[in-house]
Amino acid sequence: MATRIIELEKPRLKNPIFIEGLPGIGNVGRISAGYLAEQLKAKKFAEIISSHFMPFVLLHQSSAVHMLKNEFYYWKAQNKKQRDLIILIGDSQSIDPEGHYEIIETILNYIKKFGVKEIFTLAGLSVGEQTTGLKVVGAVSDPELVKKYQKYGIDFNTGAKVGTIAGAAGLLLGLGRYYDMKGVCLLGETVGFSVIPDPKSAEVVLKVLTKILNIKIDTSKLEKKIKEMEDFIKKIKTMETRAIAQLLRPKEMPKEKEKLTYIG
Amino acid sequence: MATRIIELEKPRLKNPIFIEGLPGIGNVGRISAGYLAEQLKAKKFAEIISSHFMPFVLLHQSSAVHMLKNEFYYWKAQNKKQRDLIILIGDSQSIDPEGHYEIIETILNYIKKFGVKEIFTLAGLSVGEQTTGLKVVGAVSDPELVKKYQKYGIDFNTGAKVGTIAGAAGLLLGLGRYYDMKGVCLLGETVGFSVIPDPKSAEVVLKVLTKILNIKIDTSKLEKKIKEMEDFIKKIKTMETRAIAQLLRPKEMPKEKEKLTYIG
Amino acid sequence: MATRIIELEKPRLKNPIFIEGLPGIGNVGRISAGYLAEQLKAKKFAEIISSHFMPFVLLHQSSAVHMLKNEFYYWKAQNKKQRDLIILIGDSQSIDPEGHYEIIETILNYIKKFGVKEIFTLAGLSVGEQTTGLKVVGAVSDPELVKKYQKYGIDFNTGAKVGTIAGAAGLLLGLGRYYDMKGVCLLGETVGFSVIPDPKSAEVVLKVLTKILNIKIDTSKLEKKIKEMEDFIKKIKTMETRAIAQLLRPKEMPKEKEKLTYIG
Amino acid sequence: MATRIIELEKPRLKNPIFIEGLPGIGNVGRISAGYLAEQLKAKKFAEIISSHFMPFVLLHQSSAVHMLKNEFYYWKAQNKKQRDLIILIGDSQSIDPEGHYEIIETILNYIKKFGVKEIFTLAGLSVGEQTTGLKVVGAVSDPELVKKYQKYGIDFNTGAKVGTIAGAAGLLLGLGRYYDMKGVCLLGETVGFSVIPDPKSAEVVLKVLTKILNIKIDTSKLEKKIKEMEDFIKKIKTMETRAIAQLLRPKEMPKEKEKLTYIG
Repeated sequence: MATRIIELEKPRLKNPIFIEGLPGIGNVGRISAGYLAEQLKAKKFAEIISSHFMPFVLLHQSSAVHMLKNEFYYWKAQNKKQRDLIILIGDSQSIDPEGHYEIIETILNYIKKFGVKEIFTLAGLSVGEQTTGLKVVGAVSDPELVKKYQKYGIDFNTGAKVGTIAGAAGLLLGLGRYYDMKGVCLLGETVGFSVIPDPKSAEVVLKVLTKILNIKIDTSKLEKKIKEMEDFIKKIKTMETRAIAQLLRPKEMPKEKEKLTYIG
Repeated sequence: MATRIIELEKPRLKNPIFIEGLPGIGNVGRISAGYLAEQLKAKKFAEIISSHFMPFVLLHQSSAVHMLKNEFYYWKAQNKKQRDLIILIGDSQSIDPEGHYEIIETILNYIKKFGVKEIFTLAGLSVGEQTTGLKVVGAVSDPELVKKYQKYGIDFNTGAKVGTIAGAAGLLLGLGRYYDMKGVCLLGETVGFSVIPDPKSAEVVLKVLTKILNIKIDTSKLEKKIKEMEDFIKKIKTMETRAIAQLLRPKEMPKEKEKLTYIG
Repeated sequence: MATRIIELEKPRLKNPIFIEGLPGIGNVGRISAGYLAEQLKAKKFAEIISSHFMPFVLLHQSSAVHMLKNEFYYWKAQNKKQRDLIILIGDSQSIDPEGHYEIIETILNYIKKFGVKEIFTLAGLSVGEQTTGLKVVGAVSDPELVKKYQKYGIDFNTGAKVGTIAGAAGLLLGLGRYYDMKGVCLLGETVGFSVIPDPKSAEVVLKVLTKILNIKIDTSKLEKKIKEMEDFIKKIKTMETRAIAQLLRPKEMPKEKEKLTYIG
Repeated sequence: MATRIIELEKPRLKNPIFIEGLPGIGNVGRISAGYLAEQLKAKKFAEIISSHFMPFVLLHQSSAVHMLKNEFYYWKAQNKKQRDLIILIGDSQSIDPEGHYEIIETILNYIKKFGVKEIFTLAGLSVGEQTTGLKVVGAVSDPELVKKYQKYGIDFNTGAKVGTIAGAAGLLLGLGRYYDMKGVCLLGETVGFSVIPDPKSAEVVLKVLTKILNIKIDTSKLEKKIKEMEDFIKKIKTMETRAIAQLLRPKEMPKEKEKLTYIG
């Protein structure tokens, strides 16, 4: 199956900006992008399913199964200072290295059709214990973007603090170059126990992002929202961890030494 | 090779229901579906082989090799209250995450040709020690199915008890949605030592399923049947465990430190 | 790249029998088939290279690199009691489960073009310590073959002794069925420390095989031959083991805790 | 995505020689080829990106992301004793066995278009502690090349010292044969702690290579150059090691035993 996009609607968008927020450190990207989509009442128009996600369905509170997927939402600009948006959120990233490249190229090929030229990826940056004054650290696909975005209070002294940006947040920028897209990664500093969502860090990221986008959203419900999501996010993580552990460890060893001989 | 279907016969079926029972917890699904196919004298019409099964053949009692495969059976309705059935049983599920998606999409593409619109997947639900009063717990691909099937004594308070449904039983429901198929997963509660087949749980699942299908089968031979199968099922599991252990651990380390230098 | 056959010559063969002997337990198959090809002065006509072999080249005694591969040889019948032969030998089998299926289907597709209908696979059967009176144990793709080959002193009480036949020796029989080929696996009993080639077991297998094929070869040089091969075979095994160990274990952990933060 | 070449320019080259230097033991190949390309002011004309590289981008000193890639450079002969050159350098080799074959075949297919018939691969040879008098050891794709290159002071008593040549340096020679290319691997002896670049070994390799190519370069800046590179090379290695460790070990185990049941 590899990776597939299921299109539910074909929106007409004008020069849209693409925003990505998938699970990762502190779930900062996932929370920020999800909250933004919800506050804007953005509309879902496509889904990604992939054989690089875990091979299971989730159950959450009801008896209906939930398939792991990523989801595209769109939002249309309300005034001339704003731009149309495509927002990508989701339950999971690839569980194997190769899948990351495949899924991200699928995304880039798809958004290219809508004329996307600018990308914002949202992620968390684990900074150990120093929790006072969380900042947004920025990485760019092109050095000239620094000038353009420095005024929004983003810390661009990035090379000294950041080694790599893994998965979608990094590769969308790196691979985006081959699709004529310029990108900025907004990294919200977080204490970084990766399972625990960090609303503070998400709020800081959202403040910078909405300023750039000329959008006003109410961040006061963010913490409450996260409370609701936390259970579900934790469930996915627990199940993934358990499933990966099962894949790596032979389940039950044969107890009695059976009289079976092995041939090769 | 990936995954391939070998068709032995092309049955003409009318609006058939698809039933899946592959190996898993307590082998509940495998036993239930296998016993149903046998009691109904359902006829095999296709096989699935896949490079996502273990790369070996089995020997069992005779000197003839047994290739790991999944098998499709069909059964034609005997009266107007019944429906034609396609039953899938087999020796194995995918041994890697990606293979699950590939095999399940191969199955969905194939059964779509016969006009399948409804799916029942059968599986076990490990419930630790509380063995009194085993129930059938249900998961659905669509919340409206709950109303339809509640009367059959299925426990649909599923979200509280079930985290994920892994492999075919879950993904057939999740992916089936993209093929316009609605599905119910019938989970037989079992004490859940995954190697040991649980006839009690299979019987409970079969009772619910046959009531839904308006079919009468004699479940009295179930325990005897399982006794016969147990050996074979155990052999597959043992071999898989051993093979996986061998894949994960380098077989024999070089004893003497040889004078060979490594280059990269 | 997957798996590829490089054809050096297109021999015209009449109803040929296919014989496989690749590395495995005691290298019994590899030694038997290799010695047979050499004694018959069989001619190489094709090579298989595959991305499922280890990604390295070997050096052995000279400074010329040796690419891991499998090799096809042919031999033409000398009299009416004999049959043309295709013999497959090689340095390696697939290092991952999926690759086995791919390589074996590549082989089956290729030999089908020469009209192959009968297969003999050669392998070792590890029997622990009981070394007196090594036998050849047989497995078949079709129960009716037992009758035909019982007279050659093959032990067909196989199910009791053999759990699985892994890799090429097993899958050529299992998958061969889908290519209208019937097959017998000749398993030479061996004490089974898989790195150490077992000439005794190879000799017993060769005696049964040549009787079936109506061929006379001199097995007196077998032990000397193996002495020569041993070094090379050991080198491959050592390198594979080392390489697999390297793949499974991160090479060098960063010593000083560097000030690099991880982002996802 | 697999593996892709992005061509920036289509140089016209006459009978070019191909030189490869990718990361490996002591980074000897990477350093030698990189320094050569820089000293010759060779021009970049193509890039390779691959889903077999790590799925992350790097940050180094600036806030701009760096995508893992391999890079092709060309240089045109300045006089009749010289030959046009294609030089391949890069950040990474494949992280999985299969990827090596895929990437190397992509390279061979690409350079074949420029008429390449001769290959030099550069690598390090770990020789433990004996550091006095580092030599260049040679491996060849064809025994007759030994005669041609022996005069350049290469030690061709290779089989006794070298077990395998892993990755690009080895497979370009082995697979090159199927593309009608002849190749020599120049192995610089090094003490071989693979993370630490070895300028001494690179210098010895460069001296032999430039003599063969009739090129004069100033090796005096080599050590300084390596000092500059060291940080970046170390960063890649550290990140790869960390990432691989993360892939192999489930990140955080669920602490409290949650009331979630597992189904299969």
